[in-house]
Amino acid sequence: MTVTHADLANAVRALAMDAVQAANSGHPGMPMGMADAGTVLFTQHLKYDPQWPQWPDRDRFVLSAGHGSMLIYALLWLTGYEKPTLDQIRNFRQLGSPCAGHPENFELPGVETTTGPLGQGLATAVGMAIAERHLNARFGDAVQDHHTWVIAGDGCLMEGINHEAIGLAGHLKLGRLNVIWDDNRITIDGATSMSTSEDVAARYEASGWHVVSCDGHDAASIDAALRAAKADPRPSLIACRTIIGYGAPNKQGTAATHGSPLGAPEIAAARETLGWNHAPFEIPADILSAWRDAGARGVDASAKWKEGASKTEGYAEFLQWLDGSALKAAGPALKAHIDGLIAAPQTVATRKASELALGAINAAAPNTIGGSADLTGSNNTLTKGLGTLDAANYGGRYIYYGIREFGMSAAMNGMALHGGIMPYGGTFLVFTDYCRPAIRLSALQRAQVVYVMTHDSIGLGEDGPTHQPIEHVMSLRVMPNVLVMRPADVVETAECWALALENTTGPAVLALSRQNLPQVRTQASENLSAKGAYRLRAASAARKVVFLATGSEVQAALAAADQLEAAGIGCDVVSMPCWELFDLQSDTYQADILPEDALIVSVEAGTTVGWERYTGRKGLRLGIDRFGASAPAEALFEKFGLTPDAIAKAVRAKLA
Amino acid sequence: MTVTHADLANAVRALAMDAVQAANSGHPGMPMGMADAGTVLFTQHLKYDPQWPQWPDRDRFVLSAGHGSMLIYALLWLTGYEKPTLDQIRNFRQLGSPCAGHPENFELPGVETTTGPLGQGLATAVGMAIAERHLNARFGDAVQDHHTWVIAGDGCLMEGINHEAIGLAGHLKLGRLNVIWDDNRITIDGATSMSTSEDVAARYEASGWHVVSCDGHDAASIDAALRAAKADPRPSLIACRTIIGYGAPNKQGTAATHGSPLGAPEIAAARETLGWNHAPFEIPADILSAWRDAGARGVDASAKWKEGASKTEGYAEFLQWLDGSALKAAGPALKAHIDGLIAAPQTVATRKASELALGAINAAAPNTIGGSADLTGSNNTLTKGLGTLDAANYGGRYIYYGIREFGMSAAMNGMALHGGIMPYGGTFLVFTDYCRPAIRLSALQRAQVVYVMTHDSIGLGEDGPTHQPIEHVMSLRVMPNVLVMRPADVVETAECWALALENTTGPAVLALSRQNLPQVRTQASENLSAKGAYRLRAASAARKVVFLATGSEVQAALAAADQLEAAGIGCDVVSMPCWELFDLQSDTYQADILPEDALIVSVEAGTTVGWERYTGRKGLRLGIDRFGASAPAEALFEKFGLTPDAIAKAVRAKLA
Repeated sequence: MTVTHADLANAVRALAMDAVQAANSGHPGMPMGMADAGTVLFTQHLKYDPQWPQWPDRDRFVLSAGHGSMLIYALLWLTGYEKPTLDQIRNFRQLGSPCAGHPENFELPGVETTTGPLGQGLATAVGMAIAERHLNARFGDAVQDHHTWVIAGDGCLMEGINHEAIGLAGHLKLGRLNVIWDDNRITIDGATSMSTSEDVAARYEASGWHVVSCDGHDAASIDAALRAAKADPRPSLIACRTIIGYGAPNKQGTAATHGSPLGAPEIAAARETLGWNHAPFEIPADILSAWRDAGARGVDASAKWKEGASKTEGYAEFLQWLDGSALKAAGPALKAHIDGLIAAPQTVATRKASELALGAINAAAPNTIGGSADLTGSNNTLTKGLGTLDAANYGGRYIYYGIREFGMSAAMNGMALHGGIMPYGGTFLVFTDYCRPAIRLSALQRAQVVYVMTHDSIGLGEDGPTHQPIEHVMSLRVMPNVLVMRPADVVETAECWALALENTTGPAVLALSRQNLPQVRTQASENLSAKGAYRLRAASAARKVVFLATGSEVQAALAAADQLEAAGIGCDVVSMPCWELFDLQSDTYQADILPEDALIVSVEAGTTVGWERYTGRKGLRLGIDRFGASAPAEALFEKFGLTPDAIAKAVRAKLA
Repeated sequence: MTVTHADLANAVRALAMDAVQAANSGHPGMPMGMADAGTVLFTQHLKYDPQWPQWPDRDRFVLSAGHGSMLIYALLWLTGYEKPTLDQIRNFRQLGSPCAGHPENFELPGVETTTGPLGQGLATAVGMAIAERHLNARFGDAVQDHHTWVIAGDGCLMEGINHEAIGLAGHLKLGRLNVIWDDNRITIDGATSMSTSEDVAARYEASGWHVVSCDGHDAASIDAALRAAKADPRPSLIACRTIIGYGAPNKQGTAATHGSPLGAPEIAAARETLGWNHAPFEIPADILSAWRDAGARGVDASAKWKEGASKTEGYAEFLQWLDGSALKAAGPALKAHIDGLIAAPQTVATRKASELALGAINAAAPNTIGGSADLTGSNNTLTKGLGTLDAANYGGRYIYYGIREFGMSAAMNGMALHGGIMPYGGTFLVFTDYCRPAIRLSALQRAQVVYVMTHDSIGLGEDGPTHQPIEHVMSLRVMPNVLVMRPADVVETAECWALALENTTGPAVLALSRQNLPQVRTQASENLSAKGAYRLRAASAARKVVFLATGSEVQAALAAADQLEAAGIGCDVVSMPCWELFDLQSDTYQADILPEDALIVSVEAGTTVGWERYTGRKGLRLGIDRFGASAPAEALFEKFGLTPDAIAKAVRAKLA
């Protein structure tokens, strides 16, 4: 008997409904509705090799509607990936199974990106498509020439980030990006008509996209649409009209199939409707074999690619971009830059210091891509000779992201996850709030992205409370796996950049000043910022106080310490650019920096909540526990008690 | 000499360029470019009374492009508002002047909403327009019948939230919302063509909007466009083609006018170009008089409105909605609800407990508007009889916001700021990240909005790390002026709701469990949650330990305490639903709850970073300092050491 498209698709449906039932939780509706489209994509269009999941020229596939995770688990197993195993699918959503509730890039090599927070998968795919075109421009068709495919749902399209993502993709003319929209007209609350009246196709067209429609349950119609998408030079939206929970006769087409098991009676009815007379998790040999054959298509293709690519001039360098060694050239360049600063100290804002560091990095490491969400001159993210990355020149290394902080951040995740690229991008620190859901996904996905966040305190002055970070540095410190760094001067900024580049398993956030800061590090040394906190100056008089300061407050602490020392009150001044790194130091080191017999005084122009971690309850915390105000910076530091005089006075009062 | 439109508009331009110059910082380009549109709006269309800024039926005006703040300061002074004074305009961006860098609603009665974080002004205006239609439906045309006007720039349109905002407005057919787009084709980085290729008009039309264009420097053209906007039943986008920095001959039309003073030579040249031969801050009497006449139009109109409105049946109630007294009826209703719970305890998830509390609130207080970002059944935000608020029924009290967390939050700010309405809305706690920039503006603007954030920990189970809050509760605690509350049971949930309703000067975030929790409060008492933390159970054996727990971990702490007490280790168990309220208690109260001679143990299924505030450095912090995992909830609490056994064991190890 010939295996039909329906057989192939029904294998996906059966695995999805049975796995959700076994887990007694999950989302059967989407994988059942999109089984036909997924089958056509994975059997006829997607370029991949299950035996070589990391094939650098594979198509990238992103399940932006991540709640439909059983779709990708089923497809990966059926096409012959080593993981997941059928047993792992049986253990869907159980502790230890890589088949997590939502797809996690660190669990399965076939999962390119973690999805679940709606809208971000598609926005991440935009970054992958940028990376592909950039690598293509640098290394040629023989090395890099693939598509990026996305399956997205109504949720992904309604989220605000969708606007930023498709605007960027349309502007950059990312024709190799194709988004299959699961147009099932159902959301959790019910019909989409309850909450939206949008003409989605018209909106995509307004953003420079090609739009094509198909019947999501007709393989030929889907195939024709995917062909049209590939043929069109614009990014494509494939509006794929589907019935959610297709095959479950009493529940299909309703929100009831979205996020709950179908239940045994409905699963039995679905088996009958679909003509699927096999036990749970049992896939007939002929059907499995047809699936495996589809997967095996890629084995030849990847071998052929390797043969061709390895003959190109740039292949060795391409591999260095991928394995991280290309980036390492930035290390010695930064070292030389720091040596120069020790020889000839500079008073500059740390945002400017970051630009100086980036000058060294970008000249030495060929595979950084920089950018800013419309604050290039303020974030100091552009260095000489990068060239603009746009539709006319994918080989450029600087992206004008527009006023799209969240879209920029998600695109950077996509570039990092694609491989080969180390992205960095800037906005004001206060707008980490706009980027925050993507920063969390950088951290969760262990993606190396550097966030260049300037104007890091009331020091930005007149723009006022909407633009003055108060809680932002602290709110990032509490997020797992983020290196949050607030350097004190031009040397620490270069050190923090070096640490960010060495931190290949997660993002770094650099909090940088608008205002000039004197160079406080004037002696040659190892990278002291690597300790997270270090004694910048030891007490001369008998030590009674340890200042623990970050960023622009280090100089204020030094000046306050001068006053106190003059009065016989010995003060250590500790610069603490990074909590996370300090927490990794030995108990002995930490105890030496934070001696029990001294008053520990934290000084940071932001919330004091949380500083008890180092000052203890009896220490002193100087900072700002309210929103800021609009005035020149000097007036604000005065108002909020963060001048050297005010700091010294507060310490004396505490000691008294 | 007759005063011309140009004279009126040039008065705005002159004040803007001179104030920015005096401050030596600020944004002259936008107010100079939009002076003509602003003049036409404020002299011919906007309904307002400078002598009665709080006139309840005034048109709402939102300067979404808040960096152009000098536009609104100039318009408010010229039309005769008591504030700002000319002297305050001279002190633009200086400490103490209400003319802050960005417009702040708490500084000037004529500023309806704080703007600056791009995109949010327009999204907030959507909420104002919803409030207007709702009040109109409830009280009639004589009481509420006004427009909402917005001036927005390219930044506001490129931000993701714009998609959510206009999608919601288009769906709800908010025809009284009119957005004037300052189409100057310039962003900070340069020409808009560097970062966007979008057909803005087509996108708005795709979302159900009416679009009309005009020449932004031709008063008749602007006037015709504003008339067309008012006449159309759909929300309108008025594409107003302008030249940024209009009048500055050498810099206009470039990014150079955006965010820096023009400089004395260019200001002199602008004076010449505009024919404005007056000293800085000097407005000729005839021009000022013409402006004041325009402002005075509203005095009669507001008096006439009051006469008409006060004759309506509902007017007295309308005033109660506005002054907050209508909402107070919820207090006794919640008290009765709690009495019922003491009599008949319930084991329910706190999200369900919130629904029970809302049942009492919504029945007693007529002016709540609820909703959810497509998680109605999960957030438990819908109670009986509210009715759906949609284009067919603006009188409904429940909004299906769709998958628009940020848009929902900004719209709620708009409803709260409009007045008359107490909005609440739900999503998963993890998606406070999506809402965060709007939560910050709730806090800064002192807007009473209640965020109903459910699925507040790993207790949500199988959906895994993308959906499990770890850092979220803490990251909200560090934000100024937010009541963050994580109740432990059905009684505390009702208490926290009561506190949220009493907290009229800022937002509250309720962090609520997915899983059932036993009722731990079974004795009648005052509102104990009002203290922020209170002793739920005192030690029986000699006290060695104080547990400090929140939410679902309170029951775990109680069970762990049972084990320890059985071994002779006395344990207080303190429930701590709200840090912010505890911090307001007396030193004596705090010291009694946190005795120095006991081991303080915090227990919360989230980051431990920050808990040193109460445990001290030597206390014990039990929580989760990594991302979560996908598995059933029980397996996760086991894995992360938050079962009673694991807690008791950790305490014993610490005491040993």
